[in-house]
Order: sequence, then structure tokens, then C-alpha cells
Amino acid sequence: MSDPTEPCHDIAHLGHVEMLTDRFEESLDFFTRVYGLKLSAIAGESAYLRAWDDYEFHSLKLTRAETTGVAHIGYRAASPAALARRVAAIEASGYKTHGWQDGDPGHGRAFRFEDPFGHVFEIYYDTVWWQPQEEAERAVLKNTASAFSGAAPRRLDHLNLLASDVTEFRRFMETCLGSRVTEYIQLDNGRLGGCWFTVNNKTYDLACTEEHGGGHARLHHVTYATDQREDILRAADIFLQNGVHIETGPHKHAVQGTFFLYVWEPAGNRVELANSGARLILAPDWQPVCWTEADRRKGQAWGLKTIESFHTHGTPPVKSREET
Amino acid sequence: MSDPTEPCHDIAHLGHVEMLTDRFEESLDFFTRVYGLKLSAIAGESAYLRAWDDYEFHSLKLTRAETTGVAHIGYRAASPAALARRVAAIEASGYKTHGWQDGDPGHGRAFRFEDPFGHVFEIYYDTVWWQPQEEAERAVLKNTASAFSGAAPRRLDHLNLLASDVTEFRRFMETCLGSRVTEYIQLDNGRLGGCWFTVNNKTYDLACTEEHGGGHARLHHVTYATDQREDILRAADIFLQNGVHIETGPHKHAVQGTFFLYVWEPAGNRVELANSGARLILAPDWQPVCWTEADRRKGQAWGLKTIESFHTHGTPPVKSREET
Amino acid sequence: MSDPTEPCHDIAHLGHVEMLTDRFEESLDFFTRVYGLKLSAIAGESAYLRAWDDYEFHSLKLTRAETTGVAHIGYRAASPAALARRVAAIEASGYKTHGWQDGDPGHGRAFRFEDPFGHVFEIYYDTVWWQPQEEAERAVLKNTASAFSGAAPRRLDHLNLLASDVTEFRRFMETCLGSRVTEYIQLDNGRLGGCWFTVNNKTYDLACTEEHGGGHARLHHVTYATDQREDILRAADIFLQNGVHIETGPHKHAVQGTFFLYVWEPAGNRVELANSGARLILAPDWQPVCWTEADRRKGQAWGLKTIESFHTHGTPPVKSREET
Amino acid sequence: MSDPTEPCHDIAHLGHVEMLTDRFEESLDFFTRVYGLKLSAIAGESAYLRAWDDYEFHSLKLTRAETTGVAHIGYRAASPAALARRVAAIEASGYKTHGWQDGDPGHGRAFRFEDPFGHVFEIYYDTVWWQPQEEAERAVLKNTASAFSGAAPRRLDHLNLLASDVTEFRRFMETCLGSRVTEYIQLDNGRLGGCWFTVNNKTYDLACTEEHGGGHARLHHVTYATDQREDILRAADIFLQNGVHIETGPHKHAVQGTFFLYVWEPAGNRVELANSGARLILAPDWQPVCWTEADRRKGQAWGLKTIESFHTHGTPPVKSREET
Repeated sequence: MSDPTEPCHDIAHLGHVEMLTDRFEESLDFFTRVYGLKLSAIAGESAYLRAWDDYEFHSLKLTRAETTGVAHIGYRAASPAALARRVAAIEASGYKTHGWQDGDPGHGRAFRFEDPFGHVFEIYYDTVWWQPQEEAERAVLKNTASAFSGAAPRRLDHLNLLASDVTEFRRFMETCLGSRVTEYIQLDNGRLGGCWFTVNNKTYDLACTEEHGGGHARLHHVTYATDQREDILRAADIFLQNGVHIETGPHKHAVQGTFFLYVWEPAGNRVELANSGARLILAPDWQPVCWTEADRRKGQAWGLKTIESFHTHGTPPVKSREET
Repeated sequence: MSDPTEPCHDIAHLGHVEMLTDRFEESLDFFTRVYGLKLSAIAGESAYLRAWDDYEFHSLKLTRAETTGVAHIGYRAASPAALARRVAAIEASGYKTHGWQDGDPGHGRAFRFEDPFGHVFEIYYDTVWWQPQEEAERAVLKNTASAFSGAAPRRLDHLNLLASDVTEFRRFMETCLGSRVTEYIQLDNGRLGGCWFTVNNKTYDLACTEEHGGGHARLHHVTYATDQREDILRAADIFLQNGVHIETGPHKHAVQGTFFLYVWEPAGNRVELANSGARLILAPDWQPVCWTEADRRKGQAWGLKTIESFHTHGTPPVKSREET
Repeated sequence: MSDPTEPCHDIAHLGHVEMLTDRFEESLDFFTRVYGLKLSAIAGESAYLRAWDDYEFHSLKLTRAETTGVAHIGYRAASPAALARRVAAIEASGYKTHGWQDGDPGHGRAFRFEDPFGHVFEIYYDTVWWQPQEEAERAVLKNTASAFSGAAPRRLDHLNLLASDVTEFRRFMETCLGSRVTEYIQLDNGRLGGCWFTVNNKTYDLACTEEHGGGHARLHHVTYATDQREDILRAADIFLQNGVHIETGPHKHAVQGTFFLYVWEPAGNRVELANSGARLILAPDWQPVCWTEADRRKGQAWGLKTIESFHTHGTPPVKSREET
Repeated sequence: MSDPTEPCHDIAHLGHVEMLTDRFEESLDFFTRVYGLKLSAIAGESAYLRAWDDYEFHSLKLTRAETTGVAHIGYRAASPAALARRVAAIEASGYKTHGWQDGDPGHGRAFRFEDPFGHVFEIYYDTVWWQPQEEAERAVLKNTASAFSGAAPRRLDHLNLLASDVTEFRRFMETCLGSRVTEYIQLDNGRLGGCWFTVNNKTYDLACTEEHGGGHARLHHVTYATDQREDILRAADIFLQNGVHIETGPHKHAVQGTFFLYVWEPAGNRVELANSGARLILAPDWQPVCWTEADRRKGQAWGLKTIESFHTHGTPPVKSREET
């Protein structure tokens, strides 16, 4: 198939995340009024949301459920042929597949498959470009998707999943999506503590860190990108004023150099606002950056010690040992 | 060769620009002390410069000459095989070629060719990753290339060339580099007024606008990216304090939405600092954005009228009719 | 009375501006929904508005009228005794007085007087501190006046009046308010082109520039301060999206070093958002900075040429010769 | 003397701090090369430093010593008459006085006195305005004191002293300097935990917090103001790159709403960079904001728990029980 010495370009980008909530109305209020996403539609038990410059109908599908966490993750293929190549690779891989699914209001048919830790992925090509329904929604600048308002995040950036074996998860991402690793954490015990993946020039679109709570198919967080760091400082005041739980930040990660702010939406899912500045991975032969435990003991980039809940809180909560 | 319905990924990114100066010492002082690039080496008649997070040995080769303008433009291929594919495509194209050249301190052998307007391009794969020579140069964060200092630009972003026929230039870029067009200016007379190209997820790495001064193979400007818009506001004060000619900005372009600041280095070459926020072109089926003359009459994004010299000044100057 | 060699501290600060509009509903929509002021009350023909950290009930009184411009300007005295001292000084000055007026929903009784160019001023001490009427309006941080939202300006900063004789206006401000001049424009013809005044440590709270349009008692603009320059860049996008006429900016004034953005509200009154960074006038013996016409020919701080309408547009319009 | 119901304006502003260092060369390198102050002169055992927009010859006097901490604090009076009034008030107060001292290269004669906790203060009127010695030092904009360079702080902002009895310190500040309290911490045990003072429209120029380490006349920190919050984020990277100990931040204080970053200079004195946005105390009848222990348990504005060393580290170290 594709030359293993060249980056795979079959997958264009992370498309959307389906997040579960057991407090649907409060979560929807948070994501629209406070976090700053825009509502494309409500259909069935789900709300379809997008950032102001996401070009697709939705990048977050928020679904009413009895629990929290991530229901599925969608990546968009680069072309119909690329989609077919990826499906063939996945079917040949031995990973569990769910087969072709009908789309939803946001995209066409999608092929679903699963990582060894229970997270469900899908890949698709046919999509729905968001179109303004009324004039007030139309962006004045025609190279932006939606009308800008408030301190809203610009586009879906990445998500972070938990897995009990990061090395195994890495094999899954390389095999099924052709992702490459840009940075990783090497534990003293020889295991991978975390891995940051990308399918394009973004520094990462998905991170996987080690599950410490005994959970299954859990979510660590979902992140949207802002244009400027200042947007994140302002957002912190907005979260404060609206009684949102700020877990940690604003601060700068050593890993990936991302400027971050983590909060919990009302149902407990962790969501982030992040800014990477002008950082891109342009080198075709990028060598993954290794972070050791000795590196990590220095704290985040500017010395902040990582807050304890960051190592334990994921969604859905683990029944017998949840931290909060 | 490659499927024309899929983006070409043979070219990884814009690598470097060779700029000519007839005031070498003053230009070098400007680029290092004021504009904030770092000096990797001086060899022969050239200084090799890089931004603090450029991973290669140089992104700007500043060369002593009897005139100004751009000597050549280098793009890095994604792999040796991709380089071979591109060379074959170029040789089949009928465009003028200069053949393989030995590299310089910054990269290995390169294949040179020329657009119909006299601009010389080269593509290469083997490169030199910049390495700190002494400890003080080493970045504390190991995912950044160099030690950060001052208000320095982060990485080479794009360049803008002048051509008497933008449609013809577009054919050149699509044929030789597999570039795609993300935005363009459609003149009322049916001609293309300008075209913005990319080979990856950046919104553009090269722009071509119409030559109005009768010049040949001229440069409009070279641009480096900053992390934040604030870096550009600060840079404006630094340019002011150092007596640098600020041509226009800071302001925001309507086209591409770039926040910009244009100055002239001592020899008269136009250089820009720019920030695109979180904007990337992730959609594999991106439809180029068309800007008409009616759109352009509204000025830049926030209404600034484009300064006259922006339409006329290029380097090298045109002998009999130069504007300044 | 007070020692003329010491700064006068009888006047604490600029309190509010009453602005006239012949498009009341549109102006009110602009100031609340787009510009970001908060509505304290509507009473009679006026809306009382404040910025999110103005401590008083209002800093802008927007009044329905047949024309535009400024109806009166209110300064708050430092104490009842200071108010009495100022009233005595004004009564002794020979300037036209209107005597004591009842207050309005925003403050207690006020003494009104008039400059030689028809602008009406008032000074008062008793005021109404704004109090949240419902919990959602209450700021979480108790050292801020109101709940923060959006990209709203933080507090009233200054206003700019037009007068046919700036020297005469300077005498008025020094006599009646004890203001001191921090910067001024010296024209080649010997006249003052403009003067910037302050009663406290702000770099200015009122500017007066020469009336060129033959108008009477006209307003040039009213300005609110933002916390950061970034707030102004974001505001420019909000104005753009909402179809507001952006006259000039964002850019940096040479005079006072203020980062500025000027727009016209729907009735044509010019309003500004500005940021002065950490600049304050702390020196008790500050020597006013003089700007000559030669200085002014260099344009604003970063070289922008001042737009023509900035020299001609004021409110209300001058009947026979208005510029727009 | 002055009417106790009116603010005292005899003192214009905080002028300078004399800081002791037992690592003079390293401290001087830090303050000039990393922190961004400018050197006005070295005379005797002291370096005289200023921020780029401090108008006086120095705002930091760095003195070689056998220990660390603060040697004295200088406030500038508003006029010669105001200076005389203050000296009379201090002499009548019963606080310990050191009498008139000759000035130093930065100012004329000064009257010294002492708080009950051993901190030495001085007040003076005659001062030396900093003048550029060569053209390159001259600011292009004539309303700024020095040529801007790098990410330098703009002006001296405030300092924080430790005292075993904050109520007693409050009486000292009100009596000797006519300072007013803008915010304070009320402990559950009835004591004042901290007090923030100002003599002008700044939100504070001196803070006093409770000494918990048994020290005498100790310094908690000295702070310079930056123009924008972004300057502080950039400074954090500069400190990181230069191996400076970042104690805590960037983050936002709940008290006073200051955006902060605390580092230790090489001798261990804590220094801060801070930004207050557009916040000023303009109300002449400002009621001090009270923060209770319940308020404080919420952490800083965005939830950061205050780092332990912030409660214990002061300079000079306390011999038998120092924390580091």
C-alpha cells in the first residue's frame, strides 16, 4: 500500500467528537452561552455544535445519555479513494470493526472501528459544509465560516483519550489512521506514559495518556483552539463569572508548548481551550520528542505542578473509585 | 502520476528564500539585531539566517549583490521518492530547468527550475537540521529549535512574487509543486489579480500578484510568522525606535485574514511580520475563495485603504520608473 | 485659594458624558449589543449606560434629540468641600454659569457652567454607586463593579471637544477644573492645535482640538478604555461583523501613545476604544510634551497618515458644509 | 493639618526601592539582561536602574551587601511645601526618624524615618530626571522616557513588605504618608492579614502582609508594571530560558485583580512583573474591599492554590528557620 517511509495523507483531519452528558440541558447551555460554540441543529437526542471557523456542520455532537465520556471520534478522509484505502487497511488489521454506518445531519456514511480500549472511531469523506440559514449568521469576511461573536474558540483542535497500554494504542493509530507521533512520554519503567499524534501539519490532533483509574474507553478531554493566548485569559474570567469549575491553567505545557486552560463542563467532561501560536510540524522527517520522568518533575513549562485530578479524573467516572 | 483529484503531498513545505542586497552589512544588522533572526553562519558572500523555531539551518540566505530582490526559492520535498516524482513532473512540463545543483551549508543537492517570469525555484530533500554550537544557544524546551530571545519571529511563513500573468504563474505552481490555490483575486477584466498557494495545511506559503511596474522576476515581500498578534504590535515599536521604514500596518488583511506589518529592510526589500491565529486549511476539498474588485474597494479587513507603494514597490527596482 | 504651584486635586475624575442622538433606538442597540456598555436604566428620553468597571450608575447618558453631539460633561469633585471650592472659583471666573441643577438617576445636585465655545460642564459630588439588581449581574470578583461579559470596555476614559480657540479653552479648563496640560500641539502659526488635560494621574481625561468646520459646541469623540490592546483588535472584528463604520485604526497615536480604534455610532457620533498600557502621569512636576507640525507630518506613531475625516467630522454636523 | 475627610495628595508616588544583594554581579546581570531594567549608573557599591518609562534617574538601587532584602523605600512628595507638611506630620507622630540625608545620584535631600518593623522610608522632592547620554538611548516618541527594547517592564509599580502587625503598619502609612487603603484581608482571628495602600490613583503602590517567619524589616517582593498581559507571558519564556526560578504564575490575583508572575533574582529577592489592565481607583470615596479567609480559600482568581513558599519566603532569610 502506501510507502511506510512517507507520511500517510489519507486522513485529512480530526472532524468531530461525540460527547455524552447526563445533564444535557446544562451542558448545552455551557457549550453555547459560556464556552462559545454555535448551535447548528438539535436532532434526536443530540445537539450539533461547531466553533466559529469550523467549516463542517459540527465538530461536537453532544448527546443525552445516562453517563458521560466520548461516544465516538470522527476523522475525515482526504478523498473517496483515500477513504477506501484506509478502510482496507483497517479491515486487514484485525482491529474490531463495526462496519459502515449511515451518516447523521453532519456527514455522509462512515466506517466505524474500535481501539483495544473500547473507544469507537469512524472515518468518512462525504460531509456537510455549514451554511448560514439567515443573513445575520453570515460572516462578513468570506474566508471565515461563521460570524464571529464573543470570545469563541475558532476550531476543533484535538482530544485526549485514556488507554491502559499506550504502546498498543500507538500501534492502533499508526495502523488505522496512518498517524505519526510528534512527542511522547517515556516512563522509567519502560512504558509509554503518553503519545501525541497527528495526521497533518498540526502538532497533534489526538493524545493518548495512560489510564490510571481502571476505566474503560474513557475520555480525558476535548480541546478547541483560540486565535490568541489573550482569548484564553479572557475566557478564564468568563468561566469564573459563570461559576464553571476551572481545574488548572492558564499555563503553558512543556509537552507541545501549548498554552492551556482546563475546565469541567456541567456533566463533568473536561474541556480545554488551547493556543499553539505559530507552531506547526512541517518537517517530513520530524523526530518525535521524548519527555522523561526527570523532565516531567520540572512541572509544566513555567514550573506549575500538575494538579492531582489531572492524573485521575476522566469520563465516565469509574464506579467504585472516582475521585470527586 | 498522482491522482489529480487528491492533494499532492510530494512537497512538504517552503524551506528558504535567497534575498539579494546591495547593502549587505546594513541588511544583516537589520535582520539580526532588529527583525530578530538568528545567524547560523556566514559563508562566501552569504549570511544564513533562521527564525527561532525554524528547524533547518537557514530559512533566509542573505547574499551580497549589486541589486536587490530574490535570487531563488527553495521548497523541501516530503521524501527522496517524492523529490524524484516532482523532478520527473517538472522535466516533463516544458518549464525551463537548471538541473541539479550542489547544496550549500544549509542543505544537500537541489533541482533548480524557473517560472516564466524569471524566478528561480529549487526542490531538495536532504537538509541540515540546525544544531546549537554552544550551550547558551540550546532551547530549554526541547520541542523548540533555538533559544527564544526578544520579539523574534517564530518561523518562515511565506513569500510574495510578482508576475505579469498570474494565471500562467498558477499553472506553473500547480504543475511543478502540486500547490493548490486557497484564495484569489478576480479582476473585472477577467485576469487574475493575485493567487495564494499552499502545499500543506498552511493557508498559504506563496502568493503571486500582478506585476505593474514592468519588472522581471521581482519580489514583493518575504514574511515570517509570529506566535501572537501582540508580537507584531511590539515589533512596530521596535521598528519605530530603530528608524526602520514602516510601510503599512499593523492591520488585518481581508484576503486570508492575516494580521500584518510591512517594513523595508535597508536595501529596500519588503519584509513582513504576520500572524494567522489558529487558521489552517484542513478541508481536503477546500474551494478557493474569490475576491472581486468590488470586495477590494472596501479596503483591508478593518477598512484601511491599501497604500499606493504596495502596488508599485518591488525589488529589484525597475530602472526607468522606480517609485521611490 | 489653592497654591498655584501645586496640582489641584479638587476634581477627582471625569464622571459622565451626555451624548445626543437622532437615532435613539439604533444608537442604544449599538452601545449595548455591539460596543459593549451595560444598561443601568432608561428614564425619560435618556438611557443611562456604564462600562463593566465604572463604579457610578452611568458614565454615558444617551439622550433622544433632534441632533447629535454632546449635551453636557460631568466631573466628580473629590469631596463636598472641594466642590464648594471649585464652585467659588468658577463663579469668580466670569465664565457663564447655569447654577445648581437637580441631579438625575445617576447623581445628586450639580453645578453647571459653560466654556466660551458652548460646551456645558457640570461638577457634582453626591453620586449613585451602581448596585446589581439581580444575582446574575453581580461580579464574582468583588473588586470589580459589574459582571464582565464579552469584549466590553472597562471604564470611561476621556472625551475630545472642538473649540475655535484652544488657548482660550485651556484657560477655561485650568480656571474652572484645575486641570493640568500633559501634551499639546504647537502650530507653526503660533496657535495651539490641541491640548490634552488631566485632573488626576490619568494621562488625559479631556482633549480639545481646533474646530475647522465652523461648528459650535461640537464633540469630536468619546472614549472608553479597554484592559488590553487585544480587546481592541477583537473589537475591530466585532465592529466589522456588525456593519459599524470603522473610521481609522487600530493604530497607535504618537501623541499620548494611545492605541486607538475610532468608529461612528449609528447617529454619527464618533466613539473610540483605547488602551494606554501602564502609562500614568505620576510626576508632580510633569513638563507638557510639545508636538510641532514637523512632528505631526511623520503621521501616527507607526506612520499611518491621519484620515481626512478626522480633521473635519464632528457632531452635530455643520449645516452647510458637513463632510458626509 | 489636612482635612481628614479628603485624600492626602502631599505624596505624589512611590519613587524607588533600595534592594540588597549578596550576589551583586549576578543580580545586576539578572536585572539588566533578563528582567529588562536599564542601567543609569554604577556609583559606590550600588547600581542605579530604571524601567524604560520611569522618568527618574532610578527606581531600583541595587546595593552590594552581606545579606538581601530592602534597605530603604523612597516616595516623592508633590511639591516642596508638601514635603515640609509631611515632615512635620512625621515628626509629630512619634515614629522613629533618621533626619535629613544627602541625596544620591538619583535625587536631592531626603527625610528618613522608620516603621515599627524596621523598614526605612524616605521622602524627597528634588529629583534627577533621567537624560539620555547618547543618541541611541533617546526614545523616538518624546512622551516616553527611554528607548524601548525587548520585553522590558515599563515602570516601577509597587512593593510588598512584611510586618508582624499589619494594623500597626496601616497606622504608620496613614500617619506618615497619608496613604489610603484600597483592599485588605480580614482574618478570622480579627487581625489584618494584609493591606494594600495607595497615595494616588494607582490601585496600590505598597502592600503589607503578615510576617510569619519571625523576620525583621523584611521584603516580600518588588514589582514593575508591564504594558500588556502578553508581556508577562513572554517574560515567563525568557525567565525559563535563562534558568530563573519561577515561583508562581502567570495567573491573576483575586485581590486587586493583578495579573502576576513571581520569580527570584539570583540573591533570592522575590521580584514580580504585573499588569493591572485599565484598573484605577478614581472614586474619591472608595470603600476598601474586604477579603475574608473564606474568600481566600477559593484560591487566586482562576483557582490556583497559593504556593507554600509565598507565605514563608522573604528577604533577608531568617537565620534559624529559613525555608530554602
